Amino acid sequence: MHYTPAPPDPKAPPVRINLLSDTQTRPTPAMREAMAKAVVGDEQVGDDPTTNELCARVADLLGKEAAVFMPSGTMCNIAATLAYCRPGDEILAHATAHIIAREGGAHAALGGFQITQLPGDDGQFTPDTFRAALHPRTRYQPPQVLVSVEQTANIGGGTIWKKAALDEVVRIAKAHGLVTHMDGARLLNATVASGISPRDMTAGWDSAWIDFSKGLGAPIGGVIAGTRAFIDDVWRWKQRLGGSMRQSGVCAAACIHALDHHVDRLADDHANARALARGLSQINGIAVQAPETNLVFFKPDGAGVSGEKMVAELRKRGVTLAMMDGRIRACTHLDVSASMIEEMIGHVRDIVRAA
Amino acid sequence: MHYTPAPPDPKAPPVRINLLSDTQTRPTPAMREAMAKAVVGDEQVGDDPTTNELCARVADLLGKEAAVFMPSGTMCNIAATLAYCRPGDEILAHATAHIIAREGGAHAALGGFQITQLPGDDGQFTPDTFRAALHPRTRYQPPQVLVSVEQTANIGGGTIWKKAALDEVVRIAKAHGLVTHMDGARLLNATVASGISPRDMTAGWDSAWIDFSKGLGAPIGGVIAGTRAFIDDVWRWKQRLGGSMRQSGVCAAACIHALDHHVDRLADDHANARALARGLSQINGIAVQAPETNLVFFKPDGAGVSGEKMVAELRKRGVTLAMMDGRIRACTHLDVSASMIEEMIGHVRDIVRAA
Amino acid sequence: MHYTPAPPDPKAPPVRINLLSDTQTRPTPAMREAMAKAVVGDEQVGDDPTTNELCARVADLLGKEAAVFMPSGTMCNIAATLAYCRPGDEILAHATAHIIAREGGAHAALGGFQITQLPGDDGQFTPDTFRAALHPRTRYQPPQVLVSVEQTANIGGGTIWKKAALDEVVRIAKAHGLVTHMDGARLLNATVASGISPRDMTAGWDSAWIDFSKGLGAPIGGVIAGTRAFIDDVWRWKQRLGGSMRQSGVCAAACIHALDHHVDRLADDHANARALARGLSQINGIAVQAPETNLVFFKPDGAGVSGEKMVAELRKRGVTLAMMDGRIRACTHLDVSASMIEEMIGHVRDIVRAA
Amino acid sequence: MHYTPAPPDPKAPPVRINLLSDTQTRPTPAMREAMAKAVVGDEQVGDDPTTNELCARVADLLGKEAAVFMPSGTMCNIAATLAYCRPGDEILAHATAHIIAREGGAHAALGGFQITQLPGDDGQFTPDTFRAALHPRTRYQPPQVLVSVEQTANIGGGTIWKKAALDEVVRIAKAHGLVTHMDGARLLNATVASGISPRDMTAGWDSAWIDFSKGLGAPIGGVIAGTRAFIDDVWRWKQRLGGSMRQSGVCAAACIHALDHHVDRLADDHANARALARGLSQINGIAVQAPETNLVFFKPDGAGVSGEKMVAELRKRGVTLAMMDGRIRACTHLDVSASMIEEMIGHVRDIVRAA
Repeated sequence: MHYTPAPPDPKAPPVRINLLSDTQTRPTPAMREAMAKAVVGDEQVGDDPTTNELCARVADLLGKEAAVFMPSGTMCNIAATLAYCRPGDEILAHATAHIIAREGGAHAALGGFQITQLPGDDGQFTPDTFRAALHPRTRYQPPQVLVSVEQTANIGGGTIWKKAALDEVVRIAKAHGLVTHMDGARLLNATVASGISPRDMTAGWDSAWIDFSKGLGAPIGGVIAGTRAFIDDVWRWKQRLGGSMRQSGVCAAACIHALDHHVDRLADDHANARALARGLSQINGIAVQAPETNLVFFKPDGAGVSGEKMVAELRKRGVTLAMMDGRIRACTHLDVSASMIEEMIGHVRDIVRAA
Repeated sequence: MHYTPAPPDPKAPPVRINLLSDTQTRPTPAMREAMAKAVVGDEQVGDDPTTNELCARVADLLGKEAAVFMPSGTMCNIAATLAYCRPGDEILAHATAHIIAREGGAHAALGGFQITQLPGDDGQFTPDTFRAALHPRTRYQPPQVLVSVEQTANIGGGTIWKKAALDEVVRIAKAHGLVTHMDGARLLNATVASGISPRDMTAGWDSAWIDFSKGLGAPIGGVIAGTRAFIDDVWRWKQRLGGSMRQSGVCAAACIHALDHHVDRLADDHANARALARGLSQINGIAVQAPETNLVFFKPDGAGVSGEKMVAELRKRGVTLAMMDGRIRACTHLDVSASMIEEMIGHVRDIVRAA
Repeated sequence: MHYTPAPPDPKAPPVRINLLSDTQTRPTPAMREAMAKAVVGDEQVGDDPTTNELCARVADLLGKEAAVFMPSGTMCNIAATLAYCRPGDEILAHATAHIIAREGGAHAALGGFQITQLPGDDGQFTPDTFRAALHPRTRYQPPQVLVSVEQTANIGGGTIWKKAALDEVVRIAKAHGLVTHMDGARLLNATVASGISPRDMTAGWDSAWIDFSKGLGAPIGGVIAGTRAFIDDVWRWKQRLGGSMRQSGVCAAACIHALDHHVDRLADDHANARALARGLSQINGIAVQAPETNLVFFKPDGAGVSGEKMVAELRKRGVTLAMMDGRIRACTHLDVSASMIEEMIGHVRDIVRAA
Repeated sequence: MHYTPAPPDPKAPPVRINLLSDTQTRPTPAMREAMAKAVVGDEQVGDDPTTNELCARVADLLGKEAAVFMPSGTMCNIAATLAYCRPGDEILAHATAHIIAREGGAHAALGGFQITQLPGDDGQFTPDTFRAALHPRTRYQPPQVLVSVEQTANIGGGTIWKKAALDEVVRIAKAHGLVTHMDGARLLNATVASGISPRDMTAGWDSAWIDFSKGLGAPIGGVIAGTRAFIDDVWRWKQRLGGSMRQSGVCAAACIHALDHHVDRLADDHANARALARGLSQINGIAVQAPETNLVFFKPDGAGVSGEKMVAELRKRGVTLAMMDGRIRACTHLDVSASMIEEMIGHVRDIVRAA
């Protein structure tokens, strides 16, 4: 998986339109106020009331028994696999999943897990592909212990795993004795876009998590939910990983604010993504993948300009985004408005015209 | 290492005097304001100006090339050993060091390192003990790669490693080809109490870190400093551990505020600790270890009351603290005033009298 | 990878024709005599002359500086990756390689390495596929450190990596800074079949090893060769893995005997494999993959009998072999004669006829 | 732990008296004959009858359900801890135990286990020391999972753990939920010397193993025994570690021969050790630790010659042995006769006299 942001360019103007990632959203004034007023305690000993409230809310949202606050989504993933698996166990995931392509090999490095890299279109494997990869227990192969899906599938194009496919994966996994884990970095984008509730979307999944520092706009944090026993194990690993914090309520307050104010508005990001895709698709020489959520993948195709050149030219015009595996990825979020989308389309049109 | 806080007691009054730990300090209004106004960006891609400023300040303070922000002091320790060592390498530390006694076995679990547990009084090993533990490279023993000291030595009584001992440990380590790492959870307590600057105190140490969520009063975070190449490696592990954050400037702002306003006042905590020790030592049946910084270890000795009972009785009076290895530990910090110390002494006197 | 030998059948006759694996070869009387006469010492301290002689011979055969004796080929692989890589490093190999499919996840479990599973026909990836999988160093992806090929490719059908492809893989690897490792479980089958010397076949590969307990007919052992510094590192890991032995000369003597007497005769095994394939391909309803060395993969195809049934029926007739990924694998070796091959073909013909 | 054999000396005569280690014993003619006649199969698939017979005999000898053959005693230890523990678990052992001092950090490197290093005289910790090291489960400390003893305690002087102490350690361990593991590298020395049967000596211990390549005189191998479920787990790790072999019956036959012929004669080694100690103690300037089994630790004490010098001088006279932690260790075994002991005593006397 190759990911290349626009190269640093000292002569480039400041970024006005940030389509690089929804991780770059900045806290709103109201969110900052919530943080400043947060009631806090010591999270590590279970005494931070705001963090406790956030965890309870996410557990309820996802229909799980308990939850825990983490400094990042990556720690949600690695603490989960550490809690579920032993060294030499096998995890199954799509070849482009975040746990394989974007976490520095952490699941092998820190856990000793072998990840089978399932193929499939749009960042998703089919239930049949999953079934075919299962094998009986032998001494020669790693015990298969966990299947993970990423909802939405980032590198797959921000695509939504359909409820029916999720259910089928769960059925197969349970019949084979596997644990089911959902990397929900952009889970709420999927639920808002599909109209399926988070609780329904994660039903049958032993654990699932939400990232608050992406489209939800909080500065820091993810929350992972599952059974109480699982969360106890995750806490042990959070301690070892260095994820136990102190007055984390200052950050958790931002997440609670996001749950109250920034969920429904993800629909705006999706509308902006669709508008962007529509506008780009009307430009000769630009190929666009139809977006399902807030990620738009496109590339010059016969436009006489490379993707890298397009990214560099956009940067000169104050727009930032990145190449991912040969395509350009534009990500909409709460710091991106409809008028910025219009402007962005115009820039692409100009660049193609000038090529 | 046994650590036992007062057991939960639903009938106990709210805590008014919190001597449990300096980790429990709460952000002051001025600190909260600094956080609310923080200029932020995406830390993970190096674009958070407030976090960058904090790292530059700590690197300068400790006389190192570079630094990185972490969600906890534990992550400073584990990312450092992961950066320096390979599985099967040997680390040398005092048997009561935080990396052995309080990090859940993380250095073995995540790194595969064997830690030799050096003996010694007051949480410190002598240079001679260190020298005697060194061995030539053979195929049968782990390669000795790193020596770690904890400044101050928490379980040792908050004692200060003397500059001469630190220098001698560095000399021996370098002669033997070892890396030197200082766990500086309470480093600034040591420098304020001794009058030695942080830069001098860490001179010769390849890496050192400061915890901001202890006596410095910030809600979250530690900063580790070392050479630029080391910090690059630490960044890779921070990513894997799940410690890479986004708009971390909201937290870094609190740390900068602490550097500006909460360092010199550590002297007040030390004065309070001395006052507490003095008061307690005048009570018949209480044995006290003379404090060097902000930790006071004492225990009933012929007072007709056990340590556990003493802790439980204090809790009924609104005072919280913990048993550690059979002794009671009281920790002073910015939420503890001189009058609270007086009150605390009175409570102990009453409890002993009533026994 | 699914591997299924014939199920245990208490009513089945003794095995007369063992096509299950060349690992099942038994030491010949001459080999046993060599073992009984072996001059021995303590291998662990470098004092076993017979083991030392064997290592020197293999190092010379493969054109490397040094070599070390191991209790198995699997330990050759795992000690090599442990010596070369650090946790979180990436290894690239074909998806069906032994290190992925048949070593119980050891490289993740014991080393913490993430293995990228390259696709490709016949157990081999193309240089282009390899090149496309390389990525620049970033903080988000594992550092790519090692590429491994398996010569011959067992699950691929005992196919031979062509010298030109090997050279191209080495060129790409070196340009990218990768270490090259050859799993030579059946390397001498490849060299005998291709007429390329072992030294030429492994030229450019940083390490390579030979298994003596497969077609070479020794009871125990593999020998891995590389630079002297690499072999020193491998020794450290051999010690940790529990592979250091004592008077290993008793086993090494069998390997030396095999080098002297059992290499050229691998050509007989290849001839037997070709005869088997030829005979089977003349049976209606049997599809056969043309063998390149001593492995013959075939399956019923319209014969009205499943592979599993075929394996079970053959077992009733005193023939043992296994299913592998839906195909039947027959392995020729020094305990399999030309007349056994004839008999085997007759059995398959009978079983198909009766179906 | 420092271990230093005599430095290589090209002018030294051949070794005639090998007191370096019982690992250096060479197979007798009768043992070699047993090996040459061994009936063999494929151990890795459970089909080697001689290996199976050996495992059954050791399981019976130690009163356990099942057993497995290993290429070394070190692999018995590491496969056992890998089977019992998860990364971040705590093992308790004496600070000089083989698993800490002589296995290259394998238990941390390969398993991620933290080993608490218990103090105590003669390589043994007392039940009280063990009890004091136990702690309740918290998030901050590794879960305590396993206690290991080494019978006999090599670095402790070849001392025998008394049955009453073993029973008390088992009682404490079971009350605390710990697994009990006995490193039986020289277990039969302890049983022969004490008259307690192996079955009684290991009663209450979840697993125990015997090394065949020490005093028992076989060239290669150890056998570990425990419950059937444990042995199944150990097999999985044996596969990953590269310890699965093929026609291992050639080696197992030597071990069976040793069980039949070399156990009772360990009493001769003990008598030789006592004779050596007696002779040495009559030399002025030599301090000797009274031997309990086949290891004799002594050192010059006021003799005007250092230990290193003594070892080097003995080497010049055709005697080899090693320094261990400042003392000289002499090890008796089946290649050491009573007359060699007499000669050795004379050499020491001469060296002291000449000093």
